[in-house]
Amino acid sequence: MIVVLKPNATEQNIQHITEKAGKLGLRVNVSRGVERTVIGFIGPEDKLQIIPLETFPGVDKVIPVLVPYKLVSREFKPDDTIINFSNGASIGGKKIAVMAGPCAIEGYDMLLSIAQKVKAAGATLLRAGAYKPRTSPYDFQGMGEEGLKILRQVSEKVGIATVTEVMDPRDVELVARYADILQIGARNMQNFALLKEVGRVKTPVLLKRGISSTIKEWLMSAEYILANGNFSVMLCERGIRTFETETRNTLDINAVPVVKQKTHLPVVVDPSHGTGRWDLVGSVAKAGVAAGADGILIEVHSNPEEAWSDGAQSLRPEKFERLMAELSAVAKAVGREL
Amino acid sequence: MIVVLKPNATEQNIQHITEKAGKLGLRVNVSRGVERTVIGFIGPEDKLQIIPLETFPGVDKVIPVLVPYKLVSREFKPDDTIINFSNGASIGGKKIAVMAGPCAIEGYDMLLSIAQKVKAAGATLLRAGAYKPRTSPYDFQGMGEEGLKILRQVSEKVGIATVTEVMDPRDVELVARYADILQIGARNMQNFALLKEVGRVKTPVLLKRGISSTIKEWLMSAEYILANGNFSVMLCERGIRTFETETRNTLDINAVPVVKQKTHLPVVVDPSHGTGRWDLVGSVAKAGVAAGADGILIEVHSNPEEAWSDGAQSLRPEKFERLMAELSAVAKAVGREL
Amino acid sequence: MIVVLKPNATEQNIQHITEKAGKLGLRVNVSRGVERTVIGFIGPEDKLQIIPLETFPGVDKVIPVLVPYKLVSREFKPDDTIINFSNGASIGGKKIAVMAGPCAIEGYDMLLSIAQKVKAAGATLLRAGAYKPRTSPYDFQGMGEEGLKILRQVSEKVGIATVTEVMDPRDVELVARYADILQIGARNMQNFALLKEVGRVKTPVLLKRGISSTIKEWLMSAEYILANGNFSVMLCERGIRTFETETRNTLDINAVPVVKQKTHLPVVVDPSHGTGRWDLVGSVAKAGVAAGADGILIEVHSNPEEAWSDGAQSLRPEKFERLMAELSAVAKAVGREL
Amino acid sequence: MIVVLKPNATEQNIQHITEKAGKLGLRVNVSRGVERTVIGFIGPEDKLQIIPLETFPGVDKVIPVLVPYKLVSREFKPDDTIINFSNGASIGGKKIAVMAGPCAIEGYDMLLSIAQKVKAAGATLLRAGAYKPRTSPYDFQGMGEEGLKILRQVSEKVGIATVTEVMDPRDVELVARYADILQIGARNMQNFALLKEVGRVKTPVLLKRGISSTIKEWLMSAEYILANGNFSVMLCERGIRTFETETRNTLDINAVPVVKQKTHLPVVVDPSHGTGRWDLVGSVAKAGVAAGADGILIEVHSNPEEAWSDGAQSLRPEKFERLMAELSAVAKAVGREL
Repeated sequence: MIVVLKPNATEQNIQHITEKAGKLGLRVNVSRGVERTVIGFIGPEDKLQIIPLETFPGVDKVIPVLVPYKLVSREFKPDDTIINFSNGASIGGKKIAVMAGPCAIEGYDMLLSIAQKVKAAGATLLRAGAYKPRTSPYDFQGMGEEGLKILRQVSEKVGIATVTEVMDPRDVELVARYADILQIGARNMQNFALLKEVGRVKTPVLLKRGISSTIKEWLMSAEYILANGNFSVMLCERGIRTFETETRNTLDINAVPVVKQKTHLPVVVDPSHGTGRWDLVGSVAKAGVAAGADGILIEVHSNPEEAWSDGAQSLRPEKFERLMAELSAVAKAVGREL
Repeated sequence: MIVVLKPNATEQNIQHITEKAGKLGLRVNVSRGVERTVIGFIGPEDKLQIIPLETFPGVDKVIPVLVPYKLVSREFKPDDTIINFSNGASIGGKKIAVMAGPCAIEGYDMLLSIAQKVKAAGATLLRAGAYKPRTSPYDFQGMGEEGLKILRQVSEKVGIATVTEVMDPRDVELVARYADILQIGARNMQNFALLKEVGRVKTPVLLKRGISSTIKEWLMSAEYILANGNFSVMLCERGIRTFETETRNTLDINAVPVVKQKTHLPVVVDPSHGTGRWDLVGSVAKAGVAAGADGILIEVHSNPEEAWSDGAQSLRPEKFERLMAELSAVAKAVGREL
Repeated sequence: MIVVLKPNATEQNIQHITEKAGKLGLRVNVSRGVERTVIGFIGPEDKLQIIPLETFPGVDKVIPVLVPYKLVSREFKPDDTIINFSNGASIGGKKIAVMAGPCAIEGYDMLLSIAQKVKAAGATLLRAGAYKPRTSPYDFQGMGEEGLKILRQVSEKVGIATVTEVMDPRDVELVARYADILQIGARNMQNFALLKEVGRVKTPVLLKRGISSTIKEWLMSAEYILANGNFSVMLCERGIRTFETETRNTLDINAVPVVKQKTHLPVVVDPSHGTGRWDLVGSVAKAGVAAGADGILIEVHSNPEEAWSDGAQSLRPEKFERLMAELSAVAKAVGREL
Repeated sequence: MIVVLKPNATEQNIQHITEKAGKLGLRVNVSRGVERTVIGFIGPEDKLQIIPLETFPGVDKVIPVLVPYKLVSREFKPDDTIINFSNGASIGGKKIAVMAGPCAIEGYDMLLSIAQKVKAAGATLLRAGAYKPRTSPYDFQGMGEEGLKILRQVSEKVGIATVTEVMDPRDVELVARYADILQIGARNMQNFALLKEVGRVKTPVLLKRGISSTIKEWLMSAEYILANGNFSVMLCERGIRTFETETRNTLDINAVPVVKQKTHLPVVVDPSHGTGRWDLVGSVAKAGVAAGADGILIEVHSNPEEAWSDGAQSLRPEKFERLMAELSAVAKAVGREL
């Protein structure tokens, strides 16, 4: 922590801060510049986080030096985390994991058909929602446990691991019984009750970035999960909210290399939500692979016109198959494989 | 719903859409312009919301005509909603309600002292948190039920109604036993499991706007609560996230008259979170009253330097008292009272 | 300037930075923390701004300590700047200046009629554009010099000072011959060629904030004008671009007290552009006055339906007259007058 | 143009709008829905753009149907525009153009050395600034005409075409005498006086996207240039401003396929400004190629530590050379070449 004092700060102000630091067991380094005095604190910064130094007399700015996350950082664990799934699939290594499937589970036959097609095209994970966060209370809210059962049946029949969203802390154990990955949606990225709950199970977690969350907040939310005991976390960039209205969200491609630098956790790119338009999904999926993503999440629906949710951003299986070939070429170009 | 077709859309495309509408019991109005054809749908728009018309061949844009909320709208209930609290306080009428108190409950004596001071200064509601949503898992998370008990004791001793946050759907009934208003924090504005749960109790709800939620999404979240049976909802503007870093958030003053037009629910302005700096709270609180807010939420702490949370944006009781006099003058200038 | 080193920075890295600083005539203060080393520089910070310290080996973050503006700061000039105009009007003192008029000059009779009405209602300045920055090349671009002549005639006949936009560095002298205040529009806030040019004349300048400019950038643009010799600058908050689409822009009410703290220059609030909707102008104008603005800029048009530009955000003269009475009451409530 | 009426709109309101349309030579299509009436206009939409329909009694919303740009659209010119430069280089075809060089021209030897290295690595265009838009009036503002002369000498000696920024309408002819491409910087994207001026010369223009400009506004600015007679325009995505502070800007990768769909003009991606950090440039450059960019703009400096501007985002020539090999592989994977 560094504190920059106001131009008119007094010696008394400096002493007041120094004493406070002393009580917390920290040493200070006072640097008297020509125009400003700057105080640095030496010792564990966490002790200071609880202190609102901004309110101390004479203080102009408080600047944290250390990042507030520990367990998710590369400094804590320099090597890439690799997460392995039941069906032999994995994420975080050389092979890029592709998660594909419909936004919502709409029935057994539909899901089975899509699962077979995406697996045939090379996807190693099936994504499909049983609980749907919907802006409107009048929209379809998902099939619930019935949907989870269908997901499990299809998973076993096709031999594909599954990822599905959990929205309520009371549902975590239930969903973990049926699915291989628990998805935390963008709207729940800072639902701390839910984060703690998924931290207490062993099932891997796919943590989507909040629609207006900074990378730091996103990593702090992952830290919640690791701090509660679950180290199998994937980070999913799915677009942020900006002023641009041409696309539903703005996929933050910069975030891919930034997060890969800061953390050992695998990074997934979701071009379906990141653009909101099926006709942009291909270009942006390729960009994600080129930028270094460890996984790609793509919505696929046999009949987007009839989809109960997010049809506008879903690819048909034929388009998905062609895209897989293109993604494979880009993956090779950057030293990865699909 | 209006659908704008692409310049090269065919008659077959038009027929395909028309048939789909017919199956849903809607009539269409096809308007063939010089450059584009536009199709309007006549009948209940909700039936169309489930249909991803964007994916239909020949469709360029889909434009909703109706707002998606019903119960919160002025069209459903033209008169202002007035909510009355246990201690005789109310919100939504001529008198502006002031909610004041510390960010977090830190102990009985501290809370009692602040409660007495803010009441003496004219506040009718005490705000204080027992459950704190914190970005870091290592930060103070609130006193929990012990804090709620303190809140209740202070409330009864001082004769002041209370508002406190609930973060977990499992805690709703518990918190409702102790507090007069349930606060849904900005991070939980789209925690639909929680919204449904507070919709099922009778305790009034203060719904904070999400940090990057549109006004429409905010009203849809209120709709969740009303649709589940609880009509006593207040909407709290607490600043949105923008590119500006000089202040913690950007208080959206425009939102006050916009929301007052669209809905019958009372609107509260929170200049403490809206600015993040105690030295800006006064100016922005006065702006909120001038713009038409029905309530003002202000963080007050006897000793911001020692506050366990959000000290930088808390006013000392003396400053709060002076501000109340100023707010009272502004309230009178706009035909209200404090 | 403070430099935070990476956890693995070496003594050699520290020496390299220290030597560089020495060459620039700066002393350094090296603070070796438990986890990180921090280097502070003592001496004139500007010398460092040219050096990309971020690229030095071992450097993690570079944090500026001083604000980059000088002449606009309260530290340079603690007292409020008061600007006086030809007709006896002024801005920056106790009296709040109201600038009103149509977006564009459309003709002599129309402008005369509006000027008489806004003056009668209490406005001391007439605003009207002869050069219009339009997003589309096919939209009306303003009457040019012919418009300026009309503006001058009306100004003299009615006895009201005028403010009008200048968009091209080649037009500065011309516009300054006709108008009392030169407006720099939001799109030109970082048109440095134009800023330098208006810095070389004596006519006061109204500098609008760029649609996505930080407060710091805005003050730096004002610094350009002062640094070129023109100290009569007003800063106009006219709304920033955010994700919200309900209003054309989001008026940043926080900016009013922030800018009043940082600078001695008068601050103007423009609720017409800040909201983009005439039905919100009144509430937000009152908020601006309550928050401490020194001036208010309002679009007024006798017949918004026929306005050649920005009709949707213009008030009719009758509505403006009523608003002036309300603004006057709010001004008194905060110790000002209209 | 479509107008949605308020629920309580009257027949008189409808008639008023209909008559107005009639006077402008437009026909209307009135569609009376169950809850709302919608009016569509048939005929040239431009005539309506001047009319503020939002202010008409009974009107709730006005929705444009047509895009406001013509000459830049794919509808006007379905085939990709290919622009050829003096040295045989081109942009817009199968071959991806790489523009590389320092932010600012600092002298002949330095520029020559970089030009030779980037050419050897495969770049076909040299970028370097003689006029620098700087936030601070106290920062280095560029070498001006002296820099342009150096640029020209280096260009001729090395046999590489050049791109350099022009900031002032008075400088357009001058800069066009020395450079092969005129760059319009992000801050000047809506400097309409400048856009008109570069529209009047024949030199190709690289139009950078404004830091918070929508894609629509960006295309409208290009339209200004084409409408003034210059059809050789390249669009450069260089990052937009969002809430994220980890990177200087957020490169909008979605914009690449969106703009390629809407317009025939070549699209360039600038990962240097788009990230602001040299260590992210490689990943994001590869993403740009994968997403379909026609050109890549990269800052290269022999000694970023000594760069006079933007050193933090510059690659050293050795790193640039390695990146070129990687970009080449990605280009091949998407059917292009470098």
